[in-house]
Amino acid sequence: MSDETLAGPVERADLFARFSLNQQTVKQWSLPELADGCARAGVRGVGLWRAPVQEYGVSAAARLVRDAGLDVTSLCRGGFFTASDPKERAEALADNRAAIEEAAALGTDTLVLVSGGLPPGSRDLPAARERVADALAELVTYAAEAEVRLAIEPLHPMYAADRCVVSTLAQALDLAERFPAERVGVVVDTYHLWWDDTIGSQIERAGATGRIAAFQLADWVTPLPAGVLLGRGQLGDGAVDLRWFRERVDEAGYQGPIEVEIFNPSLWERPGDEALAEVLERFITHLVHSR
Amino acid sequence: MSDETLAGPVERADLFARFSLNQQTVKQWSLPELADGCARAGVRGVGLWRAPVQEYGVSAAARLVRDAGLDVTSLCRGGFFTASDPKERAEALADNRAAIEEAAALGTDTLVLVSGGLPPGSRDLPAARERVADALAELVTYAAEAEVRLAIEPLHPMYAADRCVVSTLAQALDLAERFPAERVGVVVDTYHLWWDDTIGSQIERAGATGRIAAFQLADWVTPLPAGVLLGRGQLGDGAVDLRWFRERVDEAGYQGPIEVEIFNPSLWERPGDEALAEVLERFITHLVHSR
Repeated sequence: MSDETLAGPVERADLFARFSLNQQTVKQWSLPELADGCARAGVRGVGLWRAPVQEYGVSAAARLVRDAGLDVTSLCRGGFFTASDPKERAEALADNRAAIEEAAALGTDTLVLVSGGLPPGSRDLPAARERVADALAELVTYAAEAEVRLAIEPLHPMYAADRCVVSTLAQALDLAERFPAERVGVVVDTYHLWWDDTIGSQIERAGATGRIAAFQLADWVTPLPAGVLLGRGQLGDGAVDLRWFRERVDEAGYQGPIEVEIFNPSLWERPGDEALAEVLERFITHLVHSR
Repeated sequence: MSDETLAGPVERADLFARFSLNQQTVKQWSLPELADGCARAGVRGVGLWRAPVQEYGVSAAARLVRDAGLDVTSLCRGGFFTASDPKERAEALADNRAAIEEAAALGTDTLVLVSGGLPPGSRDLPAARERVADALAELVTYAAEAEVRLAIEPLHPMYAADRCVVSTLAQALDLAERFPAERVGVVVDTYHLWWDDTIGSQIERAGATGRIAAFQLADWVTPLPAGVLLGRGQLGDGAVDLRWFRERVDEAGYQGPIEVEIFNPSLWERPGDEALAEVLERFITHLVHSR
C-alpha cells in the first residue's frame, strides 16, 4: 500500500489548504495567468517576487491577488545587506524599506531576506555577517510599523560568497534572536538545509522560540548546473526526505503555509497548468505523514 | 608595505618546508614528471591519488618517491562507505584495506577518506552516516596495524548527495571521536569548510583533541562550473581568508604539512613548472602571518 492510499482525506485536505505556489516555480506565467491558474487548480496561496510585481505595478498586483481571493504567503526578497560602501549600504536600506512597503501593500506579513554575499574583493565573512545584523536593527521598527515580519533565509553554503553569508538555520536563528520573535523570523527551505546533520534540533529550536516565518520546499538533484542557481528539483526527484522535514516543522508547532519554490527551466518550458498539476500531485505524495 | 615584505625569511622558510603539492593540482604531470618537477622547485612533500599510483604500479611509485626524497603527506582516497547492499559494502571495505596497504607502501601515515553519498534512490542521510561509522569501526584495527591513520574529510555540503554525507568539521569530529585520536583524524580543507560560521571553534576542538590529520588549501571562486567538481580556485583568487585558516590551524597546535589541492583545468592546461611556481608564490603571499 502506498503512502498516498494511507493518507486520510482529512490530512490531504489540510495539506492542500496549506499549499502555496511560489511564482518562480511557474515563471512562465504572468501575474494574471498565475491568478487564473491558481483558481483553476483550487490553489489559495502564492509567494510573489518583487521584480514581476514591480513590472506589473504594485497596486495593480495587490488588486489582482485580492480580487482573485489569493493569500500572498511571502514576498521575495529584501536583503543584500553586506555592502561596506556607505552609499551602497544606504541604497540597500532604502530598497529594503520599499520592499517592506510592497509586502504590506500585497497583504503579506512575511518579507523573505537573502542577506547578501561578500563585497567584491573582500574575504571578511564575520564583518559581512555583522553588517547583516546592523541592517536588521535599522529595519526592524520600520517593518513592525508596516506589520511585516523580516524572515531571514539561510541559503545553501554554496551561495556564501556571492549571495548569502547566512548558511545554516543555527546561524539565522542566532541573528534573529537578537530581535523579538514577532519582528524577525527565519525561513526553513529544504533545498538549502537538507544536508545539515543538526537540522532536526535547529527546527525544534526555531519552533520553540516561535521563529518559523516560512517553510519552503524544493528537492536536491544532481549534477548541479553551471552557476548552481537553476538546478532545484521537482518534489520527489531528489535526495531530500520532504516528509521528514514536514513532520519536524509540524512538530515544532508551525501551522502556516507550505510554499513550493522550484527554480528549474524544465518546469518553465511546460504549460503552467501541467507543471502546477505535477507539483500538487508530488506535494501530496511526498508530504503525507508516515504511519 | 605588503604582507610579503613583512614576512621574515625564517617564517617564509618554515612555511615553504611545510608545503606539499597534491598531485591533482598539476594533473598534467605523470608521476616521474611530478618527482622531477618537485626537485626543480625544491618541493619536498606530495599528496598522491590512488588511480595514478595504481596505473604506475604501487611498488614502482613507492620506489620513485623514495628515490626522489619526497615525503608522501597523504594518499587520496579511501571511503565511499555508504552502500547498503551487502556485496557492495564488502567490496568497499576490501578496497579500503587495499588503500591502507597502498598508503603504507608509499610511506604515508595519512589515508584521506571521502565518506560517500546517498545510495541511489535513498533519502536516509542518518542511516548513510551511521554506515560510515560502522565502516570506520571495521577498518580501524587494520589501519593501525599498517601504521596508517584514517583521515575523515568533510566535503562541502554541495556534495552531500553524491559524494560525501559528512559535510562539516563538527560532524567529522563527532565521527572521529568514537575512535582513538591516533587512529582516526580529520582533514581541514579550506575549500570545503570556509563558509562555516563555527569553523574557528571546530578547528580549536580538532586541535585540542589531536585530530588534525591534514590541512589542505584551495580557494573558492564563482561562478561554479556544471557538476561543481573542477571549480576550485588558485590561492588568492577567491573568497577564502587563507591566512586566517593557517593561523587558526597553527594555534590549534598543528605543525604538519600544508597541502595545496586545486582541481582546476586552467592550471592543468599550463606547463607544470609554471603552474607550480604560481602556486608556490601564492602560497607564501597568502599564508604568511598577519602582523
